Amino acid sequence: MLIGGMQLDQQLVTTALVDHAAREHGAREIVTLWADGVEERSNWSAVHHMARQMAAALVRLGIKKGDRVATLAMNHLHHLVSWYGSAGAGAVLHTVNPRLFDEQLVYIINHAADRVLLFDRQFAPIVERLKPQLPTVEHFIQYDGQGDLGYRLFRDWIAAEDGHFEWLPIDERDACGLCYTSGTTGNPKGVLYQHRTNVLHAYALLQPDVFDMASRSNVLPVVPMFHANAWGLPYGCAAAGAKMVMSATNDAAALWRLIRNEKVTHSAGVPTVWLAMFADMDANGGDYGALKHVVIGGSAAPRAMIERLMLNNIRVAHAWGMTETSPIGTMGAMPHGWDDMSFDQQVDMVAKQGRVPFGVELRTVDDDDVVLPRDGKTSGRLQVRGLWIVQRYFQAEHDAADLDGWFDTGDVAILHPDGVMQITDRAKDVIKSGGEWISSIELENAAMGCPGVAEAAAVGVPHPKWDERPILLVVRKAGSDVSAEQIISHLSGAVAKWWLPDEIKFVDDLPHTATGKLLKRQLRDAYKDYRLASLDAAS
Amino acid sequence: MLIGGMQLDQQLVTTALVDHAAREHGAREIVTLWADGVEERSNWSAVHHMARQMAAALVRLGIKKGDRVATLAMNHLHHLVSWYGSAGAGAVLHTVNPRLFDEQLVYIINHAADRVLLFDRQFAPIVERLKPQLPTVEHFIQYDGQGDLGYRLFRDWIAAEDGHFEWLPIDERDACGLCYTSGTTGNPKGVLYQHRTNVLHAYALLQPDVFDMASRSNVLPVVPMFHANAWGLPYGCAAAGAKMVMSATNDAAALWRLIRNEKVTHSAGVPTVWLAMFADMDANGGDYGALKHVVIGGSAAPRAMIERLMLNNIRVAHAWGMTETSPIGTMGAMPHGWDDMSFDQQVDMVAKQGRVPFGVELRTVDDDDVVLPRDGKTSGRLQVRGLWIVQRYFQAEHDAADLDGWFDTGDVAILHPDGVMQITDRAKDVIKSGGEWISSIELENAAMGCPGVAEAAAVGVPHPKWDERPILLVVRKAGSDVSAEQIISHLSGAVAKWWLPDEIKFVDDLPHTATGKLLKRQLRDAYKDYRLASLDAAS
Repeated sequence: MLIGGMQLDQQLVTTALVDHAAREHGAREIVTLWADGVEERSNWSAVHHMARQMAAALVRLGIKKGDRVATLAMNHLHHLVSWYGSAGAGAVLHTVNPRLFDEQLVYIINHAADRVLLFDRQFAPIVERLKPQLPTVEHFIQYDGQGDLGYRLFRDWIAAEDGHFEWLPIDERDACGLCYTSGTTGNPKGVLYQHRTNVLHAYALLQPDVFDMASRSNVLPVVPMFHANAWGLPYGCAAAGAKMVMSATNDAAALWRLIRNEKVTHSAGVPTVWLAMFADMDANGGDYGALKHVVIGGSAAPRAMIERLMLNNIRVAHAWGMTETSPIGTMGAMPHGWDDMSFDQQVDMVAKQGRVPFGVELRTVDDDDVVLPRDGKTSGRLQVRGLWIVQRYFQAEHDAADLDGWFDTGDVAILHPDGVMQITDRAKDVIKSGGEWISSIELENAAMGCPGVAEAAAVGVPHPKWDERPILLVVRKAGSDVSAEQIISHLSGAVAKWWLPDEIKFVDDLPHTATGKLLKRQLRDAYKDYRLASLDAAS
Repeated sequence: MLIGGMQLDQQLVTTALVDHAAREHGAREIVTLWADGVEERSNWSAVHHMARQMAAALVRLGIKKGDRVATLAMNHLHHLVSWYGSAGAGAVLHTVNPRLFDEQLVYIINHAADRVLLFDRQFAPIVERLKPQLPTVEHFIQYDGQGDLGYRLFRDWIAAEDGHFEWLPIDERDACGLCYTSGTTGNPKGVLYQHRTNVLHAYALLQPDVFDMASRSNVLPVVPMFHANAWGLPYGCAAAGAKMVMSATNDAAALWRLIRNEKVTHSAGVPTVWLAMFADMDANGGDYGALKHVVIGGSAAPRAMIERLMLNNIRVAHAWGMTETSPIGTMGAMPHGWDDMSFDQQVDMVAKQGRVPFGVELRTVDDDDVVLPRDGKTSGRLQVRGLWIVQRYFQAEHDAADLDGWFDTGDVAILHPDGVMQITDRAKDVIKSGGEWISSIELENAAMGCPGVAEAAAVGVPHPKWDERPILLVVRKAGSDVSAEQIISHLSGAVAKWWLPDEIKFVDDLPHTATGKLLKRQLRDAYKDYRLASLDAAS
């Protein structure tokens, strides 16, 4: 038997992240733009103190290890404090997406059996409306604003504690976070995060090929804290000792003001955020400030968005992941031949989804679960496993991953020989024509590059010979009278001939999920018995 | 009870690092300059294959989990393969420093009970000489060169295996490495590294504030692989998917050729390496190639060295650590106000030892173990604890760390409010005068800035009133006749008046350890009864 070694009893716990930030980078700022327009400056030292106050206040409420504490909130100081305060009390922070529909909110809060609900004043109407249906919630605490609604205010609640609180004993395998997927089918499913997995994820975030964060970084996560761990940034910023800038509003002008005034170097958000920000800049002027690194996730960034940022000397990277992957699965990074690539080649690279950091593995499989080659051509169902990948949904009876740890992401992707991953579609949205796969997303993106097209959705409809054939639903831009022939002509230069839709139908609008994604399921249902006009013409 | 969560059975094992490098960055090059001048190009995919061949070969030799496999070797492909091949067989790789004295080598190989010894041809004379005293070593295998000495060659040995080997089951708390400290007192002590701690250390290395390594980095570790885990670089490079460039010789011209030809971006080594490299550049010309990041550890870099590199747009950072800290304890990093600092302020910052990454904690204590303030003024004994800090030496009966995990480093340091650490001396070398501490290192550095001084050593000698007073032993530069008065005059501008040495003695040379450090213990012994001339004059 070997005696000796390193300090193996040191635990990977999220409270150690805020301990580190307060001890080594205590004066680094935490800036909040509150919903009422007030700006508040704090720092890691104060976050640490307030988190200990909150942990003590939770213990005083009778919260026990493993109990769920829910938030219904935007990004701000008190939400950040809650990530660490709940962890230090041994509780599990359940970040609820306030944009969900009422029945989803009721379902997940009851399923999680949340005992405390912390909420922003702007979401008080939701709380008022749903309260009678939330029997497990014993305490409602208001994050911001005044006490006129009769709820206890967060600031008063924690101020009653002196902050000389020692974190409760935590094992690195204990849970600390819970986030539900807003799936398009069935009930939402809860993903439970552990201390260990969140800390490992934070380490992985810092590296140059992922978020590239240092203590001198000034980070504005536009991604909400209720969305998949805010991509891990509240943990990563603490690990790096970075400055955090948070906004409780997503108003584009306000975000630009913060970026410029606070010398924001890193930001992260979904493509629609950047579209709104560009529109504001085009209307009102202004520059990019000190911005040098933008991460885009949620869905693919249009090529024009990538080019615009790159032409302004901003590094752009796609992040791919999901609630089930903590969420970073891949990140775009400059490969070793980057400097020898042309601008177009660089944009081609950035348009893909990037590579896994150490800790994550990918593979693609066909419909018979045969593992496919990483040849840069063959697309298949994307599967993932690793240090921070889901094993089993919260309170589920069976694992979500298979016996070897592989979790089926529902995405369809190509793996390239250099490790780069390229999403081509959602598995459910692939159009299967003559045994081959047509990517609905590529078809839609190509169509949206056609002048006059505001939005497009490609759907597979039944065909006796080809099994399925694509049709394209198009919303015209206001004032446009673009024709089906013009769109087909545009597509002909962009996709293979056999991918061209059999019909183009003009519609007034398309259905979307609460988070703004196309609601493909509804479209598939609506068109599942659709009969192509060409079939009647032929018969 | 909470059901569900992430894949907590995924282990933090070093073999996963080379799996990742081979899978995601298989074509990234591994370049070796062998001792005979031959250059060999390989890649992570080949390293992975060879490591599996080696693991199979070790199993065939009867090596069992936890058995020690020793190396007596410089940096090269086969040494790198051995780091992963031994781990995959469940063995512990014991990297032996070939520069140790014979009695130390015999002691540590016997203490470790190594069963296999892998060695470079250039160290065959050591093996021949010591073999009769190494009863535990059953297998001697030669890394490079031909078979003329009668030893089995590494390449032939592993070529007998097909490489279709699955890593043996490893727990993240199993040991994988062993390295002895070449202490200046007592027997060398073994530091045992575990899979988990090496993997966490590798994650920490990648971040911008530590080694800043990405897949497009080209890394040349001048630091030997037998020296404190080679500062973790063989693990960090695999985690990043970086190119590695290794040299089995430390010839300055050869290193420059590699740096320029292989577009090396990152390098790491002790100050003496860089002094030799500068001398070669000054004599033979040439530029810095693509070098952009130099890490200096082992001892403090002279200010002129820092300035020279910075003026050539190379980021310079001090690393502080020791075998007992895996080894990274702190690293110099650009603080958030960096761009607003003057060049001199930047050099002042780089001259200090930097900050801890997340995972390491520091404190300073006085002689009564009272914790000292982080005020940027008070110096005390530096203590460290954390995820990759020693708990107990190999086969020791007692912990090296205290009950709270604090390990006393033997260094004396100041902690600054911004988290920056500044080494002022070794605890044993501090001169205690009138209850205050005089830093022998600061005195020596100041003296070495005096024209005509080649080397200087400050030693405390007995004094009836002050307890101790410093004297300075000086080696003059060839041809210099610098006087004691000139040195005192030079020092007067650099240190406090009460730090000025009571005597200056000129000597022909000073004693050094095998690794080139001043052998202070021998000097202290030689002068422990020294009587200052001033005392006789006064009496």
